[in-house]
Amino acid sequence: MLEALKEKVLQANLDLVKHKLVLFTWGNVSEIDRRSGLIVIKPSGVSYDEMKAEDMVVVDLEGKVVEGDLRPSSDTPTHIEFYKAFPHIGGVTHTHSTFATAWAQAGRSIPFYGTTHADYFYGDIPCARSLTKEEIEGAYEKNTGLAIIEKFREDGIDPLEVPGVLIKSHGVFAFGKDGGGSVYNATVIEEVAKMAFLTEQINPTVVRADKFMMEKHYQRKHGKNAYYGQTKKK
Amino acid sequence: MLEALKEKVLQANLDLVKHKLVLFTWGNVSEIDRRSGLIVIKPSGVSYDEMKAEDMVVVDLEGKVVEGDLRPSSDTPTHIEFYKAFPHIGGVTHTHSTFATAWAQAGRSIPFYGTTHADYFYGDIPCARSLTKEEIEGAYEKNTGLAIIEKFREDGIDPLEVPGVLIKSHGVFAFGKDGGGSVYNATVIEEVAKMAFLTEQINPTVVRADKFMMEKHYQRKHGKNAYYGQTKKK
Amino acid sequence: MLEALKEKVLQANLDLVKHKLVLFTWGNVSEIDRRSGLIVIKPSGVSYDEMKAEDMVVVDLEGKVVEGDLRPSSDTPTHIEFYKAFPHIGGVTHTHSTFATAWAQAGRSIPFYGTTHADYFYGDIPCARSLTKEEIEGAYEKNTGLAIIEKFREDGIDPLEVPGVLIKSHGVFAFGKDGGGSVYNATVIEEVAKMAFLTEQINPTVVRADKFMMEKHYQRKHGKNAYYGQTKKK
Amino acid sequence: MLEALKEKVLQANLDLVKHKLVLFTWGNVSEIDRRSGLIVIKPSGVSYDEMKAEDMVVVDLEGKVVEGDLRPSSDTPTHIEFYKAFPHIGGVTHTHSTFATAWAQAGRSIPFYGTTHADYFYGDIPCARSLTKEEIEGAYEKNTGLAIIEKFREDGIDPLEVPGVLIKSHGVFAFGKDGGGSVYNATVIEEVAKMAFLTEQINPTVVRADKFMMEKHYQRKHGKNAYYGQTKKK
Repeated sequence: MLEALKEKVLQANLDLVKHKLVLFTWGNVSEIDRRSGLIVIKPSGVSYDEMKAEDMVVVDLEGKVVEGDLRPSSDTPTHIEFYKAFPHIGGVTHTHSTFATAWAQAGRSIPFYGTTHADYFYGDIPCARSLTKEEIEGAYEKNTGLAIIEKFREDGIDPLEVPGVLIKSHGVFAFGKDGGGSVYNATVIEEVAKMAFLTEQINPTVVRADKFMMEKHYQRKHGKNAYYGQTKKK
Repeated sequence: MLEALKEKVLQANLDLVKHKLVLFTWGNVSEIDRRSGLIVIKPSGVSYDEMKAEDMVVVDLEGKVVEGDLRPSSDTPTHIEFYKAFPHIGGVTHTHSTFATAWAQAGRSIPFYGTTHADYFYGDIPCARSLTKEEIEGAYEKNTGLAIIEKFREDGIDPLEVPGVLIKSHGVFAFGKDGGGSVYNATVIEEVAKMAFLTEQINPTVVRADKFMMEKHYQRKHGKNAYYGQTKKK
Repeated sequence: MLEALKEKVLQANLDLVKHKLVLFTWGNVSEIDRRSGLIVIKPSGVSYDEMKAEDMVVVDLEGKVVEGDLRPSSDTPTHIEFYKAFPHIGGVTHTHSTFATAWAQAGRSIPFYGTTHADYFYGDIPCARSLTKEEIEGAYEKNTGLAIIEKFREDGIDPLEVPGVLIKSHGVFAFGKDGGGSVYNATVIEEVAKMAFLTEQINPTVVRADKFMMEKHYQRKHGKNAYYGQTKKK
Repeated sequence: MLEALKEKVLQANLDLVKHKLVLFTWGNVSEIDRRSGLIVIKPSGVSYDEMKAEDMVVVDLEGKVVEGDLRPSSDTPTHIEFYKAFPHIGGVTHTHSTFATAWAQAGRSIPFYGTTHADYFYGDIPCARSLTKEEIEGAYEKNTGLAIIEKFREDGIDPLEVPGVLIKSHGVFAFGKDGGGSVYNATVIEEVAKMAFLTEQINPTVVRADKFMMEKHYQRKHGKNAYYGQTKKK
């Protein structure tokens, strides 16, 4: 079942290692098959060195394991909330990548400081609030998703225009049209997080770059009249 | 004697290199065989490139070399104190890994700033006091162990719940159920040390994350009802 | 057409990866054939892993594609302005390398703090102003080039003596006698940007190094009586 | 002539690359044969990728090339002053390694903050003054050596007990019993420089570690009664 998608999700998970976004097993990628409503996700706590396509777990939107011998990522309920709330995303990545997690631990959104950021994110990369005691002691992973969705709704953010988010005291979630796209965006977030940290160290009074520059850079890659690359980008 | 354990301890020592925790010969791992009370430890000052399983040294809990042609790590007396004071640990790692050592040199415990930390450490990673002149000029390595044990006793810390510690102006010791487990924890300490450094740079007024988040993350990996991974974690 | 040059430009582009100056497709190198007035440049948005010499695009100084199946780098109009304004340069590199981009985002020129800098740059590495709304919404990439050229003219800078520049909120351009030379200089800028950042962290009241030291180091490598290396350096 | 030494000096120079102390050709190692008074040194500006043992240059203590087709490192006169002033050293390394150079550019000695430092350096790693206009415009490289020697003499430092030094606005020189030993010490300086930078960031009011700790750590590795390692260390 969904063998091609399992192979794709395996590769996306291995890309976390390639892009140095994970230590040990600290990250996971999923992708949804929108026709069947089934999600393929990394198994929990399995080493990337040993992971095979058949280890990927298939779950439905209620979180029921439909296929697979292993337990799915403990973050599966978070992924599910995103797929339910954001109908246009097809992939989700979760990491504790170093610089982005530092911003999350600092409880700060990553400000738009330049074109590297604007090439992929149409605005600050938001930091969602930390969960309450009740949310943590209840359905924690599901509530993590809900707190993030709340942030996107309150701030009117489109998860394909700002395909990533921090969650306070925790880490990063990135979105994409598919699993690989979400890993790509997670990689960009880590680099942008590092640059923003350095930018503030070099100039403690720095302010955000101009909004019209953000507009230009985002649109030349992602807008209707995009002219970057060889074909329409995903 | 203890050939399988020597191979295991060799691999754990080589993992120090793999995880970039050591420069030259600056680190060592040991593991104890609790039935016989014998400890297998890296030889002193030998290059990781050339080390073989048969170079591992077997010592008893009095520090007597029971087997091996080479001198054991000069830190052996520190390891021994840990095995005597902490009956549930099975492995010890010592490193001068960069970020963790910077916290040790700064004389500060690493505050709990997020879930990456709480997934492995149930509280701040403590920094033990520096030794007195008398302690340093006396049985220095043994006294290093005693100062750390004193810190754990005074603060009521369980070395399996907080399996790592800094010692002021020096470096890091990590504990585990076995040698490999202690290397794993030493690797986490280095990453958590880097993240905590960055967190404070990004937000100089940051405070610790919520205690109930620490509780949740630690317990979902290590508690009675742990649900992370495929089987009970070591 | 220009097959040898395409191979050279391909190699220069691959050197961006080797020197860790680019993530994904975020950089490009071109070189001009001054006799024909034709420029060979990287295609837009193509992965470095898959790029072949025949993918390089040949454009003229009006930006018309003279040969090649792919679209040229979206930054081509910037490169063209440099070749028109600076008759002695033969190569141009554009990157978003981490430390240099942080200085650009901080809106600061990189001060001359030592001989590593002076060995290649005869003065601060300047940071050109950000573009106006009109410049960005108009011929953006061309205007990027013009803002940089304006900076060099106003400050009386020779692009072979200071073969690199930041542009505010964006990234880096480097110049050279050929494409490979511009990549070399882009690599130096990234290292010098990292050192300058650290220098200010270690000593917040640091001032520029002495001008006579700059003179000496620059001239011993690049002056009429240069005595560094085996032959005259390019 | 001195073929074995050339091979040794080549390997020491290649170790600069292995330990990531150099970018391009920015470093050099020499070793002296004290019986003949001849020095073997890296040629100037030659790529490490292409360097062969026969490219090493033999010079005498007056700087005359005794053997070799290539020009010796432009820093040769600095090396020579060290061999003349410090009769017990046998090797010299010069680098612009990132963190150590940042301290040099900051014009600060690297304070003794912990045992990693004390294991190799019996006191702060000093930063020699910058040269005067006259010294720079005169015999620059020779004067660089003299300014460093002046610093060691004034502060009463033994170059085997503190086998490394920064020079303001420039970079690092390290000493050793042979060329390889000086590269080893240059590698330690870079790591200690990084740790000291981080230490001050984590605790801006940190003070030096205790002198008796320095004494202990230095002596257990280098003293008459050293007990680290398997044999007397070089």
